[in-house]
Amino acid sequence: MAKNASANQLYGGIDVGGTKVLALLVDRNGSVVSASKRKTRGELGFRSVCERAAEAMREAAEIEGYQLENLAAIGIAVPCPVLPTGCTAPAPNLPGWKNAPLIRTMEELTGRPVYAENDGNAGVYGEYAFGAGKNAKTLLGLFVGTGIGGGLVYHGELVVGENRMAAEVGHIIVQEGGRRCGCGHKGCLEAYASKTGMARRFSWEIIQEGRKSAITQVCPDGNYATVKSSFLREAYRSGDPVVVETLQEGALYLGVGVASFITLFGPDMIVIGGGVFEALGKELLPSVKESARQRTWPEASYRDSKINLALLGDHAVGLGAAAFAMHSLDRDTRKSKSKSKAGK
Amino acid sequence: MAKNASANQLYGGIDVGGTKVLALLVDRNGSVVSASKRKTRGELGFRSVCERAAEAMREAAEIEGYQLENLAAIGIAVPCPVLPTGCTAPAPNLPGWKNAPLIRTMEELTGRPVYAENDGNAGVYGEYAFGAGKNAKTLLGLFVGTGIGGGLVYHGELVVGENRMAAEVGHIIVQEGGRRCGCGHKGCLEAYASKTGMARRFSWEIIQEGRKSAITQVCPDGNYATVKSSFLREAYRSGDPVVVETLQEGALYLGVGVASFITLFGPDMIVIGGGVFEALGKELLPSVKESARQRTWPEASYRDSKINLALLGDHAVGLGAAAFAMHSLDRDTRKSKSKSKAGK
Repeated sequence: MAKNASANQLYGGIDVGGTKVLALLVDRNGSVVSASKRKTRGELGFRSVCERAAEAMREAAEIEGYQLENLAAIGIAVPCPVLPTGCTAPAPNLPGWKNAPLIRTMEELTGRPVYAENDGNAGVYGEYAFGAGKNAKTLLGLFVGTGIGGGLVYHGELVVGENRMAAEVGHIIVQEGGRRCGCGHKGCLEAYASKTGMARRFSWEIIQEGRKSAITQVCPDGNYATVKSSFLREAYRSGDPVVVETLQEGALYLGVGVASFITLFGPDMIVIGGGVFEALGKELLPSVKESARQRTWPEASYRDSKINLALLGDHAVGLGAAAFAMHSLDRDTRKSKSKSKAGK
Repeated sequence: MAKNASANQLYGGIDVGGTKVLALLVDRNGSVVSASKRKTRGELGFRSVCERAAEAMREAAEIEGYQLENLAAIGIAVPCPVLPTGCTAPAPNLPGWKNAPLIRTMEELTGRPVYAENDGNAGVYGEYAFGAGKNAKTLLGLFVGTGIGGGLVYHGELVVGENRMAAEVGHIIVQEGGRRCGCGHKGCLEAYASKTGMARRFSWEIIQEGRKSAITQVCPDGNYATVKSSFLREAYRSGDPVVVETLQEGALYLGVGVASFITLFGPDMIVIGGGVFEALGKELLPSVKESARQRTWPEASYRDSKINLALLGDHAVGLGAAAFAMHSLDRDTRKSKSKSKAGK
């Protein structure tokens, strides 16, 4: 049963993560019509990941009786920058992705127009199009998990830098000479406010200071960056002092970053999401806000920027990829129309 | 002798500073046709400053045989944000400017369309239109003097924030909990890399550490923030250790800021100017670049951002105001044309 999609055009949104690929079938209002998953299996190489992404997309369409050809366009979000050539920059978790022809390969495999974006940018674009940032003109998004991803939508467009590698919101320096970050630099926002950053504080408190915390039971190997956000929530709510202090320090530093972002961009909205804030948003958001209020210049800009929790959860990146495909296809259609007009 | 300006339209660019008002007559290529100055005399109140600004503009026109009516439009740059209403936010050095109707008053006094912008933004726009940033798509400008001003031009438009108070590049936090800034916060870029910030280090070295420096001779009152950049150049070149260390520390921190700006925006060009870099650009720029290189993420983004010295010196703000007026008038003309088309 092949339905007619013209009444409400359908789009694909694919989120390629380090461990799984999630494909969403999405309508123009941002409703998820269906979803399908595969394992990423990055070790099998670039083309193999693309094949699983295309399969998942086909399956998501078929669940609802559609074919890939019913999709107006497909957006794909990947954990690395997408260069102007349509190829990818090296992805740390995906061997063989250096200069891989992402857009061409996905168009071959699906037969549809494909648009590609970095996953952090796609997540912000999802919240902008269909989530907590729906009414924003300038939206900054921050996703706090193992690292800190995010990006900026400025008057409808993602700001990705002239080389498409910017919007690395987790790697601004908030403490010159400070704590070592996973990127090799010192004092990045991510070194304080992400799970990887907080893991350093956990190690310090437990090993150097000899303090007790329930986190030693769930991470007996001392690899605290792998702690689940749901555990952090329980430990925080039960008042585990090491967990409370570390998360509050993270929230304070996130506020330092938020203050600098407002001071620079003056967004009318900031959206904060990711695993840590899905688990503990209610507890941590007030601390982030108070820290940002104390550090934004001028303070009026703090008052003019709403700071809210993200709404789309695990679907943010896939929905953002779909929204980015809608937006890009509309733009390309307008461009080719105005070209054909000019040609007359 | 009233010349006909149609062949090469003329624009006014007015730079209202804390002590003087500079009016430039500018052609579409950014050549300064003539200039005239007045004292600002802010203590006489808002309208009085506007009158002197209009007088200076009239004089600059008359020097070359023009009248104000020969100007297509006038841009005015002021040391405070200009709100969407065309009024000003409070200006620290200009009493009575809170909510002052800047655009209306200047249009009354000159009879020309007036466009207004903050002076830091105007300076960057000047370098973008006619100076070192001429070929940039995304340009970040930093002007290092008593404080640190600047701004961002993104694809032809100034990014000023939704409340028009952002782009406060000197007030991002680079050292959480660090040195006190003039704004009242701690650890701002300006607290380390501006003359006001460096004055704190001078005081520390001389008073707390008892070190000797030639700066004590030119600032016997200990008010080191007032030191002339030309003195800093001489002392630096003669190897005065306190001056060399302090300026190098400033350059390092400026590089911290530059790294964060590149990490976030990925501009294809960064322009650094202001009194300190006009005097010591050649000496300090390599340190700024090396510091930024070590801290930008990913490093490829550092390589894709050119970092150059500003070119327009004292004329940057006035030229930027004129360029902003050109750009805004062109935009308004296009808008009203497309409206009248739509009305047909």
